[in-house]
Amino acid sequence: MTGVPPVALAGTGREARLLMRHGRHQGHTAGMAPGHVQGNLVILPQADAADFLRFCQRNPQACPLLAVSEPGDPHLRELGADLDIRTDLPRYRVWRDGVLVDQAADVTGLWRDDLVSFVIGCSFSFEQALMEAGIALRHVDEGRNVAMYRTSIATVPAGVFHGPLVVSMRPLDAASAIRAVQVTSRFPRVHGAPVHIGRPDLIGIADLARPDFGDPVTVLDDELPVFWACGVTPQAVVMAARPAFCITHAPGCMLVTDLLNQQLASF
Amino acid sequence: MTGVPPVALAGTGREARLLMRHGRHQGHTAGMAPGHVQGNLVILPQADAADFLRFCQRNPQACPLLAVSEPGDPHLRELGADLDIRTDLPRYRVWRDGVLVDQAADVTGLWRDDLVSFVIGCSFSFEQALMEAGIALRHVDEGRNVAMYRTSIATVPAGVFHGPLVVSMRPLDAASAIRAVQVTSRFPRVHGAPVHIGRPDLIGIADLARPDFGDPVTVLDDELPVFWACGVTPQAVVMAARPAFCITHAPGCMLVTDLLNQQLASF
Repeated sequence: MTGVPPVALAGTGREARLLMRHGRHQGHTAGMAPGHVQGNLVILPQADAADFLRFCQRNPQACPLLAVSEPGDPHLRELGADLDIRTDLPRYRVWRDGVLVDQAADVTGLWRDDLVSFVIGCSFSFEQALMEAGIALRHVDEGRNVAMYRTSIATVPAGVFHGPLVVSMRPLDAASAIRAVQVTSRFPRVHGAPVHIGRPDLIGIADLARPDFGDPVTVLDDELPVFWACGVTPQAVVMAARPAFCITHAPGCMLVTDLLNQQLASF
Repeated sequence: MTGVPPVALAGTGREARLLMRHGRHQGHTAGMAPGHVQGNLVILPQADAADFLRFCQRNPQACPLLAVSEPGDPHLRELGADLDIRTDLPRYRVWRDGVLVDQAADVTGLWRDDLVSFVIGCSFSFEQALMEAGIALRHVDEGRNVAMYRTSIATVPAGVFHGPLVVSMRPLDAASAIRAVQVTSRFPRVHGAPVHIGRPDLIGIADLARPDFGDPVTVLDDELPVFWACGVTPQAVVMAARPAFCITHAPGCMLVTDLLNQQLASF
């Protein structure tokens, strides 16, 4: 297909999206277009979108909004000049009444003029910043998904949307945990600073070895578990609300944008 | 004494210094000239000053230098236009060969043209920022001195100066500990971010209830001990080196400067 680069050459967000738009890449987006912001996707009918926007506003650490589309508009120009949200992710999940009914590489045929797209920041951005600061990430070193847990911390509800905060956990020694607070505080649009350090039992996590999502990772004796608000929170909240219709990204198959992670740094 | 305000009216650094210069206040400086930077004082002969300056440069979290005088010059204009380091502290300690030989409210009679003054940032500045951020400090609430501990962390030596890092400890719940990292990171010239969180045993502290300096404070079950590098470190290191001659502030009797704490915020 002319003009579509091989995956290994998808150095920009646009190149990555072209691959996916043309069906040349339907897998995970981890490692694609290095340095570029990736985002979680939630698409809802306008009837639910107002409640969900309020939910995101009230829970900014779990739901840091990178962009919200106009109703019916499949473009989000602030994230990419040519971006088409119907075709540019590798894989989508389609939900009706809270039940997964389909997975697809293209949702053009399902598009409606009342659909609003929400793109929510993801931890890939701050993980890059952590690694560039010399902080090793256990799940990366162990080749696993990050460990994620439902907590006893309630999100602030809005309309039909409510539910527990979901967190990701990265074990760090104390000096790295302190440095990680500094580094991730610079990135409020991709979950920002940790929400908890040190005592999983205080936030309703009984056993670190049994995450609710992702994979368990080794926690060494001299390490503190450090917890960040996770983009799985809005997905879990939306599913629990059972909206009549919803489209999300498939796990790990994110929207790759033209923004650079460094553009999100707040100071 | 004409022109010297009562202690309660010492609203500026200059007013506080005037009180002390004229012998009207020889006690602790906590709470004087609210919002103004206070500093630890170490005065050394030029023969030792070069080593000590290198020591401070190599251990910036424990020894954040606010100012260093010219040899023999009792003035430090960057900290106060009229400041006279020989008279402007409430009480001094005089050391010979590492032994405390005198306490005095004025060291003009001991002044020499080879003496170099080092003013080192103190935690009063970041404690104000923490309290303004809504973080309660246990030792303040309990009316005690902050708890301080010798650690197993070695400072980086320079010349005759070497010894363990001394830390202060403030117990905080996890959310406040994270916020405290953010707040104190803005103040690198007054010790900056914590050096450790959570596990005193990992930094050589056997029992939080038995501090090496200051008073023990209550640590609640849901709190983490948060440790900052402490200005007692350089004092302990200087005393251990037994310099032929040395003048320091008496405990709690700091130099009050014209700088505002907020002027030290790095972003």
